[in-house]
Amino acid sequence: MAEFAEASGDLLERIRKSRPVIHNITNFVVMNTTANVLLALGAAPIMAHAIEEMVDISNISSALVINIGTLSTSWVKSMTYAARLARVAGKPLVLDPVGSGATKLRTDTACEIAKFSAPTVIRGNASEILSLSATGGMPRGVDSVNTTEEAITAAKTLAVERRTVVAVTGAQDFVTDGTRSFLISGGSPMMMSVTGTGCSASATVGAFLAVEKDAILATVSALALFKVVAEKAALKSQGPGSFWVQALDELHNITPKVFENSARIDPA
Amino acid sequence: MAEFAEASGDLLERIRKSRPVIHNITNFVVMNTTANVLLALGAAPIMAHAIEEMVDISNISSALVINIGTLSTSWVKSMTYAARLARVAGKPLVLDPVGSGATKLRTDTACEIAKFSAPTVIRGNASEILSLSATGGMPRGVDSVNTTEEAITAAKTLAVERRTVVAVTGAQDFVTDGTRSFLISGGSPMMMSVTGTGCSASATVGAFLAVEKDAILATVSALALFKVVAEKAALKSQGPGSFWVQALDELHNITPKVFENSARIDPA
Amino acid sequence: MAEFAEASGDLLERIRKSRPVIHNITNFVVMNTTANVLLALGAAPIMAHAIEEMVDISNISSALVINIGTLSTSWVKSMTYAARLARVAGKPLVLDPVGSGATKLRTDTACEIAKFSAPTVIRGNASEILSLSATGGMPRGVDSVNTTEEAITAAKTLAVERRTVVAVTGAQDFVTDGTRSFLISGGSPMMMSVTGTGCSASATVGAFLAVEKDAILATVSALALFKVVAEKAALKSQGPGSFWVQALDELHNITPKVFENSARIDPA
Repeated sequence: MAEFAEASGDLLERIRKSRPVIHNITNFVVMNTTANVLLALGAAPIMAHAIEEMVDISNISSALVINIGTLSTSWVKSMTYAARLARVAGKPLVLDPVGSGATKLRTDTACEIAKFSAPTVIRGNASEILSLSATGGMPRGVDSVNTTEEAITAAKTLAVERRTVVAVTGAQDFVTDGTRSFLISGGSPMMMSVTGTGCSASATVGAFLAVEKDAILATVSALALFKVVAEKAALKSQGPGSFWVQALDELHNITPKVFENSARIDPA
Repeated sequence: MAEFAEASGDLLERIRKSRPVIHNITNFVVMNTTANVLLALGAAPIMAHAIEEMVDISNISSALVINIGTLSTSWVKSMTYAARLARVAGKPLVLDPVGSGATKLRTDTACEIAKFSAPTVIRGNASEILSLSATGGMPRGVDSVNTTEEAITAAKTLAVERRTVVAVTGAQDFVTDGTRSFLISGGSPMMMSVTGTGCSASATVGAFLAVEKDAILATVSALALFKVVAEKAALKSQGPGSFWVQALDELHNITPKVFENSARIDPA
Repeated sequence: MAEFAEASGDLLERIRKSRPVIHNITNFVVMNTTANVLLALGAAPIMAHAIEEMVDISNISSALVINIGTLSTSWVKSMTYAARLARVAGKPLVLDPVGSGATKLRTDTACEIAKFSAPTVIRGNASEILSLSATGGMPRGVDSVNTTEEAITAAKTLAVERRTVVAVTGAQDFVTDGTRSFLISGGSPMMMSVTGTGCSASATVGAFLAVEKDAILATVSALALFKVVAEKAALKSQGPGSFWVQALDELHNITPKVFENSARIDPA
């Protein structure tokens, strides 16, 4: 997938040049982390959840990212409303179904948004994606304990059912639109020891969607960037504290050329 | 307390092997910090406060940590409900009474949870523990300005009254169940210059309780680990920014053996 | 402005000696960052928003900082109530109108607080200050795209209208009470790549106001400290991750003497 890698570098350049505003309705744990990742990337984050300002925020945003961690029922209204505004305006929507499968509230909310809000991309771990799929079987908690195979089948089914791109992230990332599928390699196990890395990856997908209509290209590029950055950061760090500091530095400093040459994207 | 130190190393090993899910209902300031501390330690954090998902979260958690910083009255219901679920299921509960004594809302909430929710462990600074004790005298604000002696007496009284383990953390930590008492030395004054270190210590106590029934052993071990990690991190850092980065690295990397040999636990 | 720089060093010393309690009603994204900045500075942060505890928190605080990022309408009541308590008690109030101009909810809220809560200082970027001024023209989103000239005129007008000190921060900071005006130089573009730097600057202004009645001196000093710290941190860092770690270290370690000698304050 040399052509995908090449296109990815170009997308990174476009983000840095156009500095797209990314609207995040996300959880309390990762708001700071997500904002810092988007800034390091070169995008402009807005965190806002009050229903009274959804129209105004939507008007100035280029993409919407909905993340259901630390969910309150009162926030769901803002999420679905913001999603409707994004759809009407033709702006991309990323759904991050944090903890879907672990609680009924989150599974129901994630399924409802997946069904009625027409997300452009759904990004989650294997358990989360399985919980959203008709073939998903029983939820098994917050962490992914399902086999890669099950998750891949569920992702393809979900992608077709919802006419969306689905990304299952893990040691290897799997991205599919139901027809075309890709595997992204690299990264570092250290990603599992820092909170908000998945949520930040979803926000990064939002930033790439803001500059690229081809949703699968944008998603693959964003996740490939995360893998490259994590891999480089791991080499320069001694634990999760220094790893995350390095990751922000790498994300800020990486050139499109180095990104292109380091991205490991394969057809699946 | 050589045998306590030895047991502590074993508990750390058990956490890393079993990766217990720790449910935190905690304040906005420290959610990210607490999640990162639990991940660095080897546990699996969940932050959730919606009453609709308390049953599901309780079912997959091994311990509950309640922290009343940035309190809203609407959250108190979820706290007491989650505490009831933990009690019924025989799961340990840690209460962190942040700011108890500083405001009536927090003092009342902390006292109510201490009285009716049967916490396994209560961890706070001297002022907070005094505010919860019948012998507590007048609250004196957020920071601890009380003498060590007053706090120790209050902790013992509270431990007996509530049949719980009480930890008063500070330059030296004091842990008691009313009968047995311990002092933990080490640490670094730099802990006072980073937000959320106390809250993270409480969450760490939760993780140790998840793998060890003896509540005083679990509490002493968790706090001793914090002291050791802080001491090591202080040696490698130049200020509160680099201190906290180092602390996360140390917490992730420390071996049970080094922990055992470095823990300074004494009978009080 | 050598005498201003000299006085600034003295204010820093006073903060570290008296450790003033600063009450913050601020947004979810920056709560942790703001608390860590205040701790590194030597002040004592409290984050609290429940209306039930506003009286108690006000009683133990030396300054109030209101920040309207991630605004909910339910928080506005607490903000205006806390502001009233501060005014009655003669305690300084800083208003940080995050995103004012970007949404009607935020513009209305910021204007209302500016009008009826008598802030001692209003600190924002050019767009935010313009949105609060009668001469402000049209809001243009979250980022400042207005000319320096427009913002300076708006700041002066606003300062006179509201009898307050107004600070417009950016590559150079502009501070005015409508009569006296100052420019503060230094800093680093890296400040733009970390979330919460503006919000933290506002909280730092709160800490300086807690130890100094002359609001323009306190504001200029606080912002000059931020510029000096950012400049020093940029020299020792490779990207936004390491920059922020260094900034916290520098803020904690800088001596009043070095601060005085490095501050670049000019009459405007």
